[in-house]
Amino acid sequence: MANQLRGACIIGQSGGPTAVINASAYGVIRTALDADCITEVYGAANGIKGVLDGKLYDMSQEDAEELRRLLNTPSSELGSCRYKIAAPEDDDTDYKRIQAVFEKYNVRYFFYNGGNDSMDTCSKISRYFAKSGYECRVMGVPKTIDNDLFGTDHCPGFGSAAKYIITSCMEVYKDARVYDTGMITVIEIMGRHAGWLAGSAAVAGHFGCGPDLVYLPERDFDMEQFLADVSHIYEKNGKVIVAVSEGIHDKDGRFISEYASDTASQKDAFGHTQLGGLAATLAAIVQEKTGAKVRGIELSLLQRCGAHLASQTDIDEAFTAGKVAVEQAVAGESGQMVGFRRAEGAAYKCEYVLLPLNSVANAEKKVPLAWINKKGDGVTQEFIDYVLPLIQGEPERDLECSLPRFARLKKVLAN
Amino acid sequence: MANQLRGACIIGQSGGPTAVINASAYGVIRTALDADCITEVYGAANGIKGVLDGKLYDMSQEDAEELRRLLNTPSSELGSCRYKIAAPEDDDTDYKRIQAVFEKYNVRYFFYNGGNDSMDTCSKISRYFAKSGYECRVMGVPKTIDNDLFGTDHCPGFGSAAKYIITSCMEVYKDARVYDTGMITVIEIMGRHAGWLAGSAAVAGHFGCGPDLVYLPERDFDMEQFLADVSHIYEKNGKVIVAVSEGIHDKDGRFISEYASDTASQKDAFGHTQLGGLAATLAAIVQEKTGAKVRGIELSLLQRCGAHLASQTDIDEAFTAGKVAVEQAVAGESGQMVGFRRAEGAAYKCEYVLLPLNSVANAEKKVPLAWINKKGDGVTQEFIDYVLPLIQGEPERDLECSLPRFARLKKVLAN
Repeated sequence: MANQLRGACIIGQSGGPTAVINASAYGVIRTALDADCITEVYGAANGIKGVLDGKLYDMSQEDAEELRRLLNTPSSELGSCRYKIAAPEDDDTDYKRIQAVFEKYNVRYFFYNGGNDSMDTCSKISRYFAKSGYECRVMGVPKTIDNDLFGTDHCPGFGSAAKYIITSCMEVYKDARVYDTGMITVIEIMGRHAGWLAGSAAVAGHFGCGPDLVYLPERDFDMEQFLADVSHIYEKNGKVIVAVSEGIHDKDGRFISEYASDTASQKDAFGHTQLGGLAATLAAIVQEKTGAKVRGIELSLLQRCGAHLASQTDIDEAFTAGKVAVEQAVAGESGQMVGFRRAEGAAYKCEYVLLPLNSVANAEKKVPLAWINKKGDGVTQEFIDYVLPLIQGEPERDLECSLPRFARLKKVLAN
Repeated sequence: MANQLRGACIIGQSGGPTAVINASAYGVIRTALDADCITEVYGAANGIKGVLDGKLYDMSQEDAEELRRLLNTPSSELGSCRYKIAAPEDDDTDYKRIQAVFEKYNVRYFFYNGGNDSMDTCSKISRYFAKSGYECRVMGVPKTIDNDLFGTDHCPGFGSAAKYIITSCMEVYKDARVYDTGMITVIEIMGRHAGWLAGSAAVAGHFGCGPDLVYLPERDFDMEQFLADVSHIYEKNGKVIVAVSEGIHDKDGRFISEYASDTASQKDAFGHTQLGGLAATLAAIVQEKTGAKVRGIELSLLQRCGAHLASQTDIDEAFTAGKVAVEQAVAGESGQMVGFRRAEGAAYKCEYVLLPLNSVANAEKKVPLAWINKKGDGVTQEFIDYVLPLIQGEPERDLECSLPRFARLKKVLAN
């Protein structure tokens, strides 16, 4: 190959965990271990922080079977971080350190597995190397349950989280209507700015066991209208199930989760407001209004780490995203994120595409308003048709005493 | 058969749902439909309330395949109730009504599927018929995720809920230690008076992914000691996972979940009013003490309706409990609950026994204190060995688009 680059690679994981982010890591690690021009395969402990600290695991020391079990091991096995890196133009301290570590280990391939913020980090590193002249191919491997990465049909992690949410909504539906007395249930679903996950709850309704009302953050939440609708359904049916995105807000942009609070909310390292407690807040408001028995359920971390209910389609695509990233980098690509394009036609088929990192970084893909119903309390058939193929397939997981047998890595530090 | 009794039967379900209560109902319905001396099989809508209202479903109208799907359909498909029936000696109004309905439909077999309160109802009806002289065989079919029925080794429903809890704890363990920053997670588990479910969380630790501290309601909860232990583990490891029964209480018998209603602690460190349950309350207290990032997770209804993660052993035993109830009633038994006796020996084996209803009703089986560790923050190996056989086996469920295909009953009302 004319353009062959020989050297070590680093794979790092960043941002919130998903059920399949380790499948992507495995896609990178397995393919890199098998690639002739990649001399060493390192896993960065806690993403870019592990690179900065020179804390790298030697993946060649791992047992092949344990590595394979990454396919069904939730959360980021290498560890994650939410480290916000400065723009190289403003402060190049971190970049100099990164390049020094890369030079020390002769790292020529860098794969970063994460969401918006991670693609931003990845893009900046790629830009810095382009300027500094250090030869290193940088590739982004997407993951996010939020499904909000720009330019790709969907993101690994979303399908499995959606499947967990839909299945749980169907089971809660069965549970919540067991008594002949009234009951209102409010289910809180992740997704700060994009309603892909909350909207997925509506898929449960497509199979006869879904929420009556579904609210996405793409539309302003009208408390008056909401309470009127809940009361109406409650009077008619005695049972109401509501699914809400954690990020629903009123027309002034105020999060509904903040209605219970007088003070400013905590913010994380990226300045994102820390949300939570919406189900309880809404449940209290609904209870006061209706006098009904109301239960708030927060799907919490469970929805993003529920590997036992993962979508095999999601696992396969997550793995392939990692694999393609390595193959394309070896073939000479750099500064790209692996994305997905859904092929036309009735049967679901996905093609892999490369998207320039700078086109992806920090952009957010929201649910098209045309896929939300007019009243703003449900989704259209297009949305259902979009989600269904992504949740297909039951994984064959290794079990131990009928419990998950997760990968057990040795995590031997590189010298 | 000398003692053959010919007539219709009624199956009713009562109390909180489980993942496998419908497997028991199916055990009753299938066996009753196939029994020569049982002329009609009726399902009572919402338990004893359906009997009182004369609202009975004709189970012979149902499709056999849909009935079979009850094996994997969570919650009580016939509907449940929490109706507390008076003692027949104090007020026999309800009993006269029940007998009138039974006479109208020539009901000679009554099967009641539930927990403590349901066995009490069952026991009272049996007692009333014995006095009134109406010939009817009354049998209890146990279910409760709480596992607190007296006289039986365990209860159908427990194994599946335990499996859901253990698996979820293992997944949350993976998720909660993904960052290199500190994190404390508090997981709230059902079981107000008995700690079987909370204790099961410790099984996750047996497989390397469990909570650091586990609290059961059988022991008084000491807040000072708890906060000292959490702080100690947090300082040492940076990560702490705590599993608590919803029913933990202090030495004065006050529920810890009620601590939030103190005027002094109505708001957490951020001024948020605490609306959630115990997990949110404890999380706020721990946060104030440690300054750490703390997340409260309530497994809520999910743990009792998670049929997708049911134990096949539990499903099989639930079915057999219903089947045995019918077979034994046909053979002449009455006034009994089907219970389980664990056979001696290394391999798990369960035998079915009959327990007089009046010995079961209203008694509570708690976790033996000897199975809780000395410090009261974990369980012993005996507890683990008790739980493990009950969670074994993965059910083959019918799926539709990779989502649960629950039973769809017609519920045709009997004339």
